[in-house]
Amino acid sequence: MKVAFIGMGTMGAAMALNLLKAGHEVTVHNRNRQREEPVAAAGATRAATPAQAAQGAEVIVTCVSDTPDVEGVLLGPQGVISGASAGAVVVDTSTISPGATRRLAAALAEQGVGMIDAPMSGGSEGAEKGTLVFMVGGAEADLNKALPVLQAMGKRITHVGPIGAGQVTKAINQVILAGYYLSTAEGMALGLKAGLDMEKVVQAISGGACDSWVLNFRSNNMIHNRYPLGFRVSLHRKDLRIALEAAGEIGAALPLAGMVAQIENGLVDRGFGDEDISALARPMRELSGIKD
Amino acid sequence: MKVAFIGMGTMGAAMALNLLKAGHEVTVHNRNRQREEPVAAAGATRAATPAQAAQGAEVIVTCVSDTPDVEGVLLGPQGVISGASAGAVVVDTSTISPGATRRLAAALAEQGVGMIDAPMSGGSEGAEKGTLVFMVGGAEADLNKALPVLQAMGKRITHVGPIGAGQVTKAINQVILAGYYLSTAEGMALGLKAGLDMEKVVQAISGGACDSWVLNFRSNNMIHNRYPLGFRVSLHRKDLRIALEAAGEIGAALPLAGMVAQIENGLVDRGFGDEDISALARPMRELSGIKD
Repeated sequence: MKVAFIGMGTMGAAMALNLLKAGHEVTVHNRNRQREEPVAAAGATRAATPAQAAQGAEVIVTCVSDTPDVEGVLLGPQGVISGASAGAVVVDTSTISPGATRRLAAALAEQGVGMIDAPMSGGSEGAEKGTLVFMVGGAEADLNKALPVLQAMGKRITHVGPIGAGQVTKAINQVILAGYYLSTAEGMALGLKAGLDMEKVVQAISGGACDSWVLNFRSNNMIHNRYPLGFRVSLHRKDLRIALEAAGEIGAALPLAGMVAQIENGLVDRGFGDEDISALARPMRELSGIKD
Repeated sequence: MKVAFIGMGTMGAAMALNLLKAGHEVTVHNRNRQREEPVAAAGATRAATPAQAAQGAEVIVTCVSDTPDVEGVLLGPQGVISGASAGAVVVDTSTISPGATRRLAAALAEQGVGMIDAPMSGGSEGAEKGTLVFMVGGAEADLNKALPVLQAMGKRITHVGPIGAGQVTKAINQVILAGYYLSTAEGMALGLKAGLDMEKVVQAISGGACDSWVLNFRSNNMIHNRYPLGFRVSLHRKDLRIALEAAGEIGAALPLAGMVAQIENGLVDRGFGDEDISALARPMRELSGIKD
Protein backbone atom coordinates (compact mmCIF):
# COMPACT_ATOMS: atom_id res chain seq x y z
CA MET A 1 0.00 0.00 0.00
CA LYS A 2 0.97 3.65 -0.34
CA VAL A 3 1.56 4.82 3.23
CA ALA A 4 2.54 8.23 4.62
CA PHE A 5 4.25 8.24 8.01
CA ILE A 6 4.58 11.46 9.97
CA GLY A 7 6.73 11.53 13.09
CA MET A 8 10.17 9.90 13.02
CA GLY A 9 10.79 9.64 16.78
CA THR A 10 12.22 6.45 18.29
CA MET A 11 8.82 4.77 17.95
CA GLY A 12 7.84 6.18 14.54
CA ALA A 13 11.15 5.38 12.85
CA ALA A 14 11.05 1.77 14.03
CA MET A 15 7.43 1.39 12.94
CA ALA A 16 8.13 2.89 9.49
CA LEU A 17 11.01 0.43 9.04
CA ASN A 18 8.60 -2.44 9.69
CA LEU A 19 6.22 -1.03 7.05
CA LEU A 20 9.08 -1.04 4.53
CA LYS A 21 9.99 -4.62 5.48
CA ALA A 22 6.39 -5.67 4.89
CA GLY A 23 6.63 -4.27 1.32
CA HIS A 24 4.63 -1.06 1.72
CA GLU A 25 5.53 2.05 -0.26
CA VAL A 26 6.36 4.55 2.48
CA THR A 27 6.75 8.35 2.40
CA VAL A 28 8.04 9.90 5.64
CA HIS A 29 8.07 13.36 7.16
CA ASN A 30 9.44 14.78 10.39
CA ARG A 31 9.53 18.36 11.69
CA ASN A 32 13.28 18.00 12.19
CA ARG A 33 14.02 16.71 8.69
CA GLN A 34 17.32 15.07 9.68
CA ARG A 35 15.43 12.34 11.51
CA GLU A 36 13.97 11.16 8.18
CA GLU A 37 17.41 10.06 7.00
CA PRO A 38 17.81 6.56 8.50
CA VAL A 39 14.37 5.51 7.23
CA ALA A 40 15.03 7.09 3.81
CA ALA A 41 18.27 5.08 3.67
CA ALA A 42 16.13 1.95 4.13
CA GLY A 43 13.97 2.88 1.13
CA ALA A 44 11.42 5.47 2.20
CA THR A 45 10.67 8.62 0.19
CA ARG A 46 11.04 11.95 2.02
CA ALA A 47 8.40 14.68 2.01
CA ALA A 48 8.92 18.33 2.96
CA THR A 49 5.52 18.74 4.68
CA PRO A 50 2.71 16.58 6.10
CA ALA A 51 0.53 17.71 3.15
CA GLN A 52 3.11 16.52 0.64
CA ALA A 53 3.56 13.19 2.47
CA ALA A 54 -0.21 12.65 2.42
CA GLN A 55 -0.54 13.18 -1.35
CA GLY A 56 -1.67 9.94 -2.96
CA ALA A 57 -1.37 7.95 0.28
CA GLU A 58 -4.05 5.39 1.08
CA VAL A 59 -3.14 5.34 4.77
CA ILE A 60 -1.53 8.21 6.71
CA VAL A 61 0.06 7.25 10.03
CA THR A 62 0.83 9.91 12.64
CA CYS A 63 3.08 9.25 15.61
CA VAL A 64 3.86 12.48 17.49
CA SER A 65 3.91 13.59 21.12
CA ASP A 66 0.81 15.39 22.28
CA THR A 67 -2.60 16.77 21.30
CA PRO A 68 -1.33 20.11 19.82
CA ASP A 69 1.25 18.22 17.72
CA VAL A 70 -1.42 16.00 16.14
CA GLU A 71 -3.65 19.04 15.59
CA GLY A 72 -0.78 20.85 13.83
CA VAL A 73 0.21 17.89 11.67
CA LEU A 74 -3.37 17.16 10.58
CA LEU A 75 -5.09 20.57 10.36
CA GLY A 76 -2.26 23.14 10.51
CA PRO A 77 -0.72 25.01 7.56
CA GLN A 78 0.63 22.42 5.09
CA GLY A 79 -1.11 19.81 7.22
CA VAL A 80 -2.37 16.40 6.11
CA ILE A 81 -5.81 17.86 5.36
CA SER A 82 -4.30 19.97 2.53
CA GLY A 83 -2.78 16.95 0.79
CA ALA A 84 -4.89 13.87 1.58
CA SER A 85 -7.26 12.42 -1.03
CA ALA A 86 -10.89 11.61 -0.27
CA GLY A 87 -11.04 7.97 0.81
CA ALA A 88 -7.69 8.03 2.60
CA VAL A 89 -7.58 7.02 6.28
CA VAL A 90 -5.54 8.71 9.01
CA VAL A 91 -4.24 6.34 11.70
CA ASP A 92 -3.17 8.34 14.76
CA THR A 93 -0.93 6.19 16.95
CA SER A 94 -0.10 9.08 19.32
CA THR A 95 -1.57 9.19 22.83
CA ILE A 96 -3.76 12.31 22.93
CA SER A 97 -7.09 13.63 24.19
CA PRO A 98 -10.16 11.52 23.26
CA GLY A 99 -12.25 14.71 22.86
CA ALA A 100 -9.71 16.35 20.52
CA THR A 101 -9.56 13.09 18.56
CA ARG A 102 -13.30 13.25 17.89
CA ARG A 103 -13.01 16.90 16.77
CA LEU A 104 -10.08 16.12 14.45
CA ALA A 105 -11.96 13.20 12.91
CA ALA A 106 -14.98 15.43 12.27
CA ALA A 107 -12.82 18.04 10.49
CA LEU A 108 -11.17 15.37 8.31
CA ALA A 109 -14.55 13.79 7.52
CA GLU A 110 -15.64 17.08 5.91
CA GLN A 111 -12.96 16.43 3.26
CA GLY A 112 -13.91 12.76 2.89
CA VAL A 113 -10.85 11.62 4.86
CA GLY A 114 -11.41 8.90 7.45
CA MET A 115 -9.65 8.63 10.79
CA ILE A 116 -9.09 5.99 13.43
CA ASP A 117 -7.35 6.47 16.76
CA ALA A 118 -4.87 3.67 17.40
CA PRO A 119 -2.74 4.46 20.45
CA MET A 120 -0.40 1.69 21.34
CA SER A 121 1.56 0.04 24.10
CA GLY A 122 4.69 -2.07 23.95
CA GLY A 123 7.41 0.59 23.97
CA SER A 124 10.45 0.95 21.76
CA GLU A 125 11.10 -2.79 21.95
CA GLY A 126 7.60 -3.52 20.62
CA ALA A 127 8.05 -0.93 17.87
CA GLU A 128 11.30 -2.56 16.71
CA LYS A 129 10.03 -6.12 16.86
CA GLY A 130 6.63 -5.27 15.35
CA THR A 131 4.86 -6.58 18.45
CA LEU A 132 2.96 -3.42 19.45
CA VAL A 133 -0.53 -3.62 20.90
CA PHE A 134 -3.02 -1.23 19.23
CA MET A 135 -6.28 -0.06 20.84
CA VAL A 136 -8.44 1.15 18.00
CA GLY A 137 -11.40 3.51 17.92
CA GLY A 138 -13.29 4.39 14.75
CA ALA A 139 -15.52 3.07 11.98
CA GLU A 140 -15.02 -0.57 11.04
CA ALA A 141 -14.63 0.34 7.33
CA ASP A 142 -11.77 2.72 8.14
CA LEU A 143 -10.07 0.14 10.37
CA ASN A 144 -10.34 -2.45 7.59
CA LYS A 145 -8.55 -0.12 5.14
CA ALA A 146 -5.77 0.44 7.67
CA LEU A 147 -5.48 -3.15 8.88
CA PRO A 148 -2.53 -4.27 6.68
CA VAL A 149 -0.57 -1.27 7.96
CA LEU A 150 -1.36 -1.98 11.62
CA GLN A 151 -0.56 -5.67 11.16
CA ALA A 152 2.90 -4.81 9.86
CA MET A 153 3.63 -2.88 13.07
CA GLY A 154 1.80 -4.79 15.82
CA LYS A 155 0.84 -8.21 17.07
CA ARG A 156 -2.54 -7.38 18.56
CA ILE A 157 -5.11 -4.97 17.15
CA THR A 158 -8.34 -4.62 19.15
CA HIS A 159 -11.28 -2.59 17.89
CA VAL A 160 -12.75 -1.22 21.12
CA GLY A 161 -15.43 1.18 19.86
CA PRO A 162 -16.15 4.41 17.96
CA ILE A 163 -13.66 7.21 17.31
CA GLY A 164 -11.94 8.26 20.56
CA ALA A 165 -12.50 4.89 22.26
CA GLY A 166 -8.91 3.87 21.52
CA GLN A 167 -7.67 6.94 23.40
CA VAL A 168 -9.94 6.23 26.37
CA THR A 169 -8.64 2.66 26.41
CA LYS A 170 -5.06 3.93 26.39
CA ALA A 171 -5.98 6.28 29.25
CA ILE A 172 -7.34 3.28 31.20
CA ASN A 173 -4.09 1.43 30.48
CA GLN A 174 -2.01 4.32 31.86
CA VAL A 175 -4.28 4.78 34.89
CA ILE A 176 -3.96 1.09 35.80
CA LEU A 177 -0.19 1.19 35.25
CA ALA A 178 0.14 4.19 37.59
CA GLY A 179 -1.12 2.13 40.52
CA TYR A 180 0.79 -1.00 39.51
CA TYR A 181 4.13 0.84 39.50
CA LEU A 182 3.43 2.66 42.78
CA SER A 183 2.20 -0.48 44.50
CA THR A 184 5.11 -2.61 43.32
CA ALA A 185 7.49 0.14 44.47
CA GLU A 186 5.85 0.18 47.90
CA GLY A 187 6.21 -3.59 48.23
CA MET A 188 9.86 -3.48 47.17
CA ALA A 189 10.56 -0.68 49.68
CA LEU A 190 9.02 -2.74 52.52
CA GLY A 191 11.20 -5.74 51.70
CA LEU A 192 14.37 -3.68 51.25
CA LYS A 193 13.77 -1.98 54.60
CA ALA A 194 13.28 -5.42 56.19
CA GLY A 195 16.62 -6.50 54.72
CA LEU A 196 15.24 -9.35 52.59
CA ASP A 197 16.89 -10.78 49.48
CA MET A 198 14.42 -9.12 47.12
CA GLU A 199 15.21 -11.23 44.10
CA LYS A 200 14.13 -14.30 46.09
CA VAL A 201 11.03 -12.45 47.27
CA VAL A 202 10.01 -11.56 43.71
CA GLN A 203 10.60 -15.17 42.69
CA ALA A 204 8.38 -16.33 45.58
CA ILE A 205 5.42 -14.06 44.84
CA SER A 206 5.50 -13.74 41.07
CA GLY A 207 3.57 -16.96 40.47
CA GLY A 208 0.63 -15.89 42.65
CA ALA A 209 -2.10 -13.27 42.66
CA CYS A 210 0.29 -10.33 42.28
CA ASP A 211 1.81 -11.77 39.15
CA SER A 212 2.19 -8.92 36.67
CA TRP A 213 4.33 -7.57 33.84
CA VAL A 214 5.47 -4.74 36.11
CA LEU A 215 6.56 -7.13 38.89
CA ASN A 216 8.25 -9.50 36.46
CA PHE A 217 10.06 -6.91 34.34
CA ARG A 218 10.44 -3.73 36.40
CA SER A 219 10.85 -4.73 40.08
CA ASN A 220 14.52 -5.38 39.43
CA ASN A 221 15.01 -1.68 38.55
CA MET A 222 13.37 -0.76 41.85
CA ILE A 223 15.51 -3.18 43.87
CA HIS A 224 18.74 -1.79 42.40
CA ASN A 225 17.57 1.85 42.20
CA ARG A 226 18.47 2.12 38.51
CA TYR A 227 15.88 3.02 35.91
CA PRO A 228 17.00 2.56 32.30
CA LEU A 229 14.32 3.02 29.57
CA GLY A 230 11.69 1.59 29.23
CA PHE A 231 9.06 4.26 29.09
CA ARG A 232 9.79 7.78 30.27
CA VAL A 233 8.29 9.22 33.47
CA SER A 234 7.70 12.48 31.56
CA LEU A 235 5.61 10.71 28.91
CA HIS A 236 3.60 8.80 31.47
CA ARG A 237 2.94 12.09 33.28
CA LYS A 238 1.72 13.54 29.97
CA ASP A 239 -0.54 10.52 29.45
CA LEU A 240 -1.94 10.81 32.99
CA ARG A 241 -2.68 14.49 32.36
CA ILE A 242 -4.71 13.46 29.31
CA ALA A 243 -6.48 10.73 31.32
CA LEU A 244 -7.28 13.11 34.18
CA GLU A 245 -8.60 15.77 31.78
CA ALA A 246 -10.73 13.19 29.97
CA ALA A 247 -12.03 11.94 33.32
CA GLY A 248 -12.91 15.51 34.30
CA GLU A 249 -14.89 15.96 31.09
CA ILE A 250 -17.07 12.90 31.72
CA GLY A 251 -17.23 13.14 35.53
CA ALA A 252 -15.09 10.14 36.41
CA ALA A 253 -12.95 10.22 39.57
CA LEU A 254 -9.36 8.95 39.49
CA PRO A 255 -7.90 9.53 42.96
CA LEU A 256 -5.00 7.09 42.65
CA ALA A 257 -3.96 8.24 39.16
CA GLY A 258 -4.18 11.84 40.38
CA MET A 259 -1.83 11.04 43.26
CA VAL A 260 0.67 9.29 41.00
CA ALA A 261 0.60 12.24 38.56
CA GLN A 262 1.51 14.53 41.47
CA ILE A 263 4.39 12.27 42.51
CA GLU A 264 5.61 12.24 38.89
CA ASN A 265 5.60 16.06 38.87
CA GLY A 266 8.21 15.92 41.60
CA LEU A 267 10.28 13.32 39.76
CA VAL A 268 10.30 15.37 36.55
CA ASP A 269 11.20 18.57 38.40
CA ARG A 270 14.12 16.81 40.06
CA GLY A 271 15.51 15.72 36.69
CA PHE A 272 14.25 12.12 36.61
CA GLY A 273 11.75 12.65 33.75
CA ASP A 274 13.90 10.74 31.27
CA GLU A 275 14.10 7.67 33.50
CA ASP A 276 11.77 4.68 33.22
CA ILE A 277 8.41 4.90 35.09
CA SER A 278 9.78 2.37 37.57
CA ALA A 279 11.61 5.42 39.01
CA LEU A 280 8.38 5.84 41.01
CA ALA A 281 10.36 3.63 43.40
CA ARG A 282 12.63 6.62 44.16
CA PRO A 283 10.12 8.49 46.35
CA MET A 284 8.82 5.24 47.86
CA ARG A 285 12.36 4.21 48.85
CA GLU A 286 13.00 7.71 50.21
CA LEU A 287 9.88 7.59 52.41
CA SER A 288 11.38 4.56 54.17
CA GLY A 289 14.94 5.93 54.21
CA ILE A 290 16.40 3.18 52.03
CA LYS A 291 19.95 3.80 50.80
CA ASP A 292 21.32 2.49 47.51
CA MET B 1 5.55 -39.08 57.26
CA LYS B 2 3.63 -38.64 60.52
CA VAL B 3 1.97 -35.24 60.17
CA ALA B 4 -0.25 -33.27 62.57
CA PHE B 5 -2.57 -30.71 61.00
CA ILE B 6 -4.24 -28.07 63.17
CA GLY B 7 -6.92 -25.86 61.65
CA MET B 8 -9.65 -27.41 59.47
CA GLY B 9 -10.93 -24.27 57.75
CA THR B 10 -11.63 -24.24 54.02
CA MET B 11 -7.90 -24.03 53.33
CA GLY B 12 -6.69 -26.43 56.02
CA ALA B 13 -9.18 -29.19 55.23
CA ALA B 14 -8.26 -29.13 51.52
CA MET B 15 -4.54 -29.15 52.33
CA ALA B 16 -4.92 -32.08 54.78
CA LEU B 17 -6.78 -34.07 52.12
CA ASN B 18 -3.81 -33.57 49.77
CA LEU B 19 -1.47 -34.85 52.50
CA LEU B 20 -3.59 -38.01 52.82
CA LYS B 21 -3.57 -38.45 49.02
CA ALA B 22 0.23 -38.22 49.03
CA GLY B 23 0.34 -41.13 51.53
CA HIS B 24 1.16 -39.23 54.72
CA GLU B 25 -0.17 -40.41 58.09
CA VAL B 26 -2.27 -37.42 59.20
CA THR B 27 -3.74 -36.51 62.60
CA VAL B 28 -6.08 -33.51 62.59
CA HIS B 29 -7.45 -31.11 65.18
CA ASN B 30 -9.83 -28.17 65.00
CA ARG B 31 -11.24 -25.97 67.80
CA ASN B 32 -14.75 -26.72 66.51
CA ARG B 33 -14.30 -30.52 66.45
CA GLN B 34 -17.10 -31.07 63.90
CA ARG B 35 -14.95 -29.65 61.15
CA GLU B 36 -12.53 -32.58 61.58
CA GLU B 37 -15.16 -35.00 60.29
CA PRO B 38 -14.81 -34.78 56.48
CA VAL B 39 -11.03 -35.21 56.70
CA ALA B 40 -11.39 -38.07 59.22
CA ALA B 41 -13.77 -39.75 56.77
CA ALA B 42 -10.96 -39.60 54.19
CA GLY B 43 -8.59 -41.41 56.56
CA ALA B 44 -7.21 -38.91 59.08
CA THR B 45 -7.00 -39.60 62.83
CA ARG B 46 -8.73 -37.08 65.12
CA ALA B 47 -7.07 -35.49 68.15
CA ALA B 48 -8.83 -33.71 71.04
CA THR B 49 -6.15 -31.02 71.49
CA PRO B 50 -3.19 -29.52 69.61
CA ALA B 51 -0.87 -31.21 72.14
CA GLN B 52 -2.39 -34.62 71.43
CA ALA B 53 -2.21 -34.08 67.66
CA ALA B 54 1.48 -33.16 67.95
CA GLN B 55 2.43 -36.33 69.86
CA GLY B 56 4.79 -38.40 67.74
CA ALA B 57 4.40 -36.13 64.69
CA GLU B 58 7.50 -35.33 62.61
CA VAL B 59 5.87 -32.27 61.07
CA ILE B 60 3.11 -30.16 62.65
CA VAL B 61 1.21 -27.89 60.25
CA THR B 62 -0.84 -24.97 61.57
CA CYS B 63 -3.39 -23.15 59.43
CA VAL B 64 -5.45 -20.72 61.53
CA SER B 65 -6.59 -17.10 61.21
CA ASP B 66 -4.48 -14.61 63.08
CA THR B 67 -1.50 -14.08 65.39
CA PRO B 68 -3.34 -14.83 68.69
CA ASP B 69 -4.76 -18.06 67.20
CA VAL B 70 -1.29 -19.34 66.31
CA GLU B 71 0.02 -18.30 69.74
CA GLY B 72 -2.81 -20.22 71.43
CA VAL B 73 -2.40 -23.34 69.30
CA LEU B 74 1.37 -23.49 69.79
CA LEU B 75 2.02 -22.18 73.32
CA GLY B 76 -1.42 -22.13 75.01
CA PRO B 77 -2.77 -24.74 77.45
CA GLN B 78 -2.76 -28.14 75.70
CA GLY B 79 -0.80 -26.43 72.92
CA VAL B 80 1.60 -28.06 70.49
CA ILE B 81 4.54 -27.27 72.79
CA SER B 82 3.12 -29.69 75.43
CA GLY B 83 2.97 -32.59 72.97
CA ALA B 84 5.67 -32.17 70.35
CA SER B 85 8.85 -34.24 70.45
CA ALA B 86 12.30 -32.69 70.20
CA GLY B 87 13.30 -32.73 66.53
CA ALA B 88 9.79 -32.11 65.25
CA VAL B 89 9.19 -29.08 62.98
CA VAL B 90 6.21 -26.73 63.11
CA VAL B 91 5.12 -25.36 59.72
CA ASP B 92 2.90 -22.32 60.21
CA THR B 93 0.99 -21.63 57.01
CA SER B 94 -1.14 -18.85 58.61
CA THR B 95 -0.55 -15.19 57.75
CA ILE B 96 0.54 -13.55 61.01
CA SER B 97 2.99 -11.03 62.45
CA PRO B 98 6.67 -11.56 61.50
CA GLY B 99 7.75 -10.37 64.97
CA ALA B 100 5.41 -12.78 66.77
CA THR B 101 6.64 -15.56 64.49
CA ARG B 102 10.21 -14.99 65.66
CA ARG B 103 9.11 -15.04 69.32
CA LEU B 104 7.10 -18.25 68.84
CA ALA B 105 10.04 -19.95 67.12
CA ALA B 106 12.33 -18.97 70.00
CA ALA B 107 9.92 -20.47 72.57
CA LEU B 108 9.65 -23.73 70.60
CA ALA B 109 13.42 -23.88 70.13
CA GLU B 110 13.83 -24.07 73.94
CA GLN B 111 12.07 -27.46 73.74
CA GLY B 112 14.12 -28.58 70.74
CA VAL B 113 11.18 -28.06 68.35
CA GLY B 114 11.95 -26.34 65.07
CA MET B 115 9.69 -23.89 63.24
CA ILE B 116 9.39 -22.43 59.78
CA ASP B 117 6.91 -19.79 58.66
CA ALA B 118 5.30 -20.77 55.38
CA PRO B 119 2.44 -18.39 54.55
CA MET B 120 0.87 -19.09 51.22
CA SER B 121 -1.04 -17.65 48.33
CA GLY B 122 -3.29 -19.33 45.81
CA GLY B 123 -6.63 -19.34 47.64
CA SER B 124 -9.08 -22.16 48.14
CA GLU B 125 -8.64 -23.28 44.54
CA GLY B 126 -4.88 -23.64 45.07
CA ALA B 127 -5.49 -25.53 48.32
CA GLU B 128 -7.78 -28.03 46.59
CA LYS B 129 -5.57 -28.57 43.56
CA GLY B 130 -2.33 -28.66 45.57
CA THR B 131 -0.96 -25.68 43.64
CA LEU B 132 -0.33 -23.30 46.55
CA VAL B 133 2.67 -20.98 46.57
CA PHE B 134 4.63 -21.07 49.86
CA MET B 135 6.98 -18.29 51.02
CA VAL B 136 9.23 -19.88 53.59
CA GLY B 137 11.32 -18.36 56.38
CA GLY B 138 13.48 -20.42 58.72
CA ALA B 139 16.54 -22.66 58.97
CA GLU B 140 17.35 -24.73 55.91
CA ALA B 141 17.51 -27.95 57.99
CA ASP B 142 13.95 -27.38 59.27
CA LEU B 143 12.67 -26.62 55.76
CA ASN B 144 14.29 -29.82 54.46
CA LYS B 145 12.46 -31.90 57.10
CA ALA B 146 9.16 -30.29 56.12
CA LEU B 147 9.69 -30.30 52.36
CA PRO B 148 7.75 -33.51 51.51
CA VAL B 149 4.76 -32.07 53.37
CA LEU B 150 4.92 -28.70 51.57
CA GLN B 151 5.38 -30.42 48.22
CA ALA B 152 2.17 -32.42 48.75
CA MET B 153 0.24 -29.14 49.18
CA GLY B 154 1.91 -26.65 46.83
CA LYS B 155 3.57 -26.21 43.48
CA ARG B 156 6.15 -23.61 44.41
CA ILE B 157 8.14 -23.41 47.65
CA THR B 158 10.62 -20.54 47.91
CA HIS B 159 13.00 -20.21 50.83
CA VAL B 160 13.29 -16.43 51.21
CA GLY B 161 15.34 -16.08 54.41
CA PRO B 162 15.47 -16.66 58.18
CA ILE B 163 12.45 -17.17 60.45
CA GLY B 164 9.85 -14.42 59.87
CA ALA B 165 11.02 -13.70 56.32
CA GLY B 166 8.14 -15.74 54.90
CA GLN B 167 5.68 -13.52 56.76
CA VAL B 168 7.37 -10.33 55.54
CA THR B 169 7.20 -11.73 51.99
CA LYS B 170 3.50 -12.43 52.42
CA ALA B 171 3.05 -8.88 53.72
CA ILE B 172 4.80 -7.58 50.57
CA ASN B 173 2.47 -9.73 48.48
CA GLN B 174 -0.62 -8.26 50.18
CA VAL B 175 0.72 -4.69 49.97
CA ILE B 176 1.33 -5.03 46.23
CA LEU B 177 -2.10 -6.63 45.73
CA ALA B 178 -3.79 -3.72 47.55
CA GLY B 179 -2.62 -1.28 44.88
CA TYR B 180 -3.25 -3.69 42.01
CA TYR B 181 -6.91 -4.14 42.98
CA LEU B 182 -7.48 -0.43 43.60
CA SER B 183 -5.77 0.59 40.38
CA THR B 184 -7.59 -1.97 38.26
CA ALA B 185 -10.87 -0.82 39.85
CA GLU B 186 -10.08 2.80 38.99
CA GLY B 187 -9.35 1.89 35.37
CA MET B 188 -12.57 -0.12 35.08
CA ALA B 189 -14.57 2.78 36.57
CA LEU B 190 -13.12 5.20 34.01
CA GLY B 191 -14.07 2.93 31.12
CA LEU B 192 -17.56 2.19 32.48
CA LYS B 193 -18.20 5.91 32.95
CA ALA B 194 -17.06 6.50 29.34
CA GLY B 195 -19.54 3.86 28.19
CA LEU B 196 -16.97 1.50 26.66
CA ASP B 197 -17.42 -2.23 26.12
CA MET B 198 -15.14 -3.16 29.00
CA GLU B 199 -14.61 -6.77 28.01
CA LYS B 200 -13.10 -5.53 24.73
CA VAL B 201 -11.01 -2.99 26.63
CA VAL B 202 -9.58 -5.67 28.95
CA GLN B 203 -8.84 -7.82 25.91
CA ALA B 204 -7.04 -4.87 24.28
CA ILE B 205 -4.81 -4.00 27.23
CA SER B 206 -4.18 -7.37 28.85
CA GLY B 207 -1.30 -8.29 26.57
CA GLY B 208 0.66 -5.11 27.35
CA ALA B 209 2.42 -3.52 30.30
CA CYS B 210 -0.60 -3.72 32.61
CA ASP B 211 -0.94 -7.45 32.12
CA SER B 212 -1.62 -8.99 35.53
CA TRP B 213 -3.41 -11.80 37.31
CA VAL B 214 -5.80 -9.25 38.84
CA LEU B 215 -6.70 -7.73 35.44
CA ASN B 216 -7.05 -11.14 33.80
CA PHE B 217 -9.07 -12.85 36.54
CA ARG B 218 -10.79 -10.16 38.61
CA SER B 219 -11.64 -7.23 36.29
CA ASN B 220 -14.74 -9.10 35.17
CA ASN B 221 -16.11 -8.97 38.74
CA MET B 222 -15.53 -5.21 38.73
CA ILE B 223 -17.23 -4.72 35.36
CA HIS B 224 -20.36 -6.60 36.47
CA ASN B 225 -20.31 -5.37 40.10
CA ARG B 226 -20.46 -8.93 41.48
CA TYR B 227 -17.76 -10.25 43.79
CA PRO B 228 -17.92 -14.01 44.45
CA LEU B 229 -14.99 -15.56 46.38
CA GLY B 230 -12.00 -15.56 45.76
CA PHE B 231 -10.34 -14.09 48.79
CA ARG B 232 -12.31 -12.20 51.44
CA VAL B 233 -12.01 -8.43 51.88
CA SER B 234 -12.03 -9.04 55.67
CA LEU B 235 -9.00 -11.36 55.46
CA HIS B 236 -7.10 -8.97 53.21
CA ARG B 237 -7.82 -6.18 55.67
CA LYS B 238 -6.42 -8.40 58.46
CA ASP B 239 -3.31 -9.09 56.36
CA LEU B 240 -2.83 -5.36 55.65
CA ARG B 241 -3.11 -4.64 59.38
CA ILE B 242 -0.26 -7.11 59.96
CA ALA B 243 1.77 -5.56 57.13
CA LEU B 244 1.21 -2.02 58.42
CA GLU B 245 2.15 -3.05 61.99
CA ALA B 246 5.27 -4.80 60.73
CA ALA B 247 6.16 -1.73 58.67
CA GLY B 248 5.70 0.47 61.74
CA GLU B 249 8.11 -1.74 63.71
CA ILE B 250 10.91 -1.40 61.16
CA GLY B 251 10.18 2.20 60.06
CA ALA B 252 8.90 1.47 56.56
CA ALA B 253 6.21 3.74 55.05
CA LEU B 254 3.26 2.22 53.17
CA PRO B 255 0.99 5.11 52.14
CA LEU B 256 -0.92 3.25 49.43
CA ALA B 257 -1.49 0.10 51.51
CA GLY B 258 -2.61 2.34 54.38
CA MET B 259 -5.16 4.03 52.14
CA VAL B 260 -6.51 0.70 50.85
CA ALA B 261 -6.81 -0.62 54.42
CA GLN B 262 -8.94 2.43 55.26
CA ILE B 263 -11.16 1.85 52.23
CA GLU B 264 -11.55 -1.81 53.24
CA ASN B 265 -12.66 -0.71 56.73
CA GLY B 266 -15.62 0.97 55.07
CA LEU B 267 -16.40 -2.09 52.95
CA VAL B 268 -16.34 -4.43 55.96
CA ASP B 269 -18.51 -2.07 58.00
CA ARG B 270 -21.07 -1.93 55.19
CA GLY B 271 -21.34 -5.72 55.12
CA PHE B 272 -19.08 -6.49 52.15
CA GLY B 273 -16.32 -8.20 54.19
CA ASP B 274 -17.23 -11.64 52.89
CA GLU B 275 -16.98 -10.56 49.26
CA ASP B 276 -13.86 -11.01 47.13
CA ILE B 277 -11.20 -8.25 47.36
CA SER B 278 -12.24 -7.13 43.87
CA ALA B 279 -15.14 -5.48 45.75
CA LEU B 280 -12.68 -2.58 46.09
CA ALA B 281 -14.36 -1.63 42.81
CA ARG B 282 -17.53 -0.75 44.77
CA PRO B 283 -16.21 2.55 46.21
CA MET B 284 -14.33 3.35 42.98
CA ARG B 285 -17.52 2.91 40.96
CA GLU B 286 -19.45 4.97 43.51
CA LEU B 287 -16.97 7.87 43.26
CA SER B 288 -17.83 8.15 39.57
CA GLY B 289 -21.56 7.53 40.04
CA ILE B 290 -21.65 4.31 38.02
CA LYS B 291 -24.87 2.31 38.27
CA ASP B 292 -25.07 -1.47 37.94
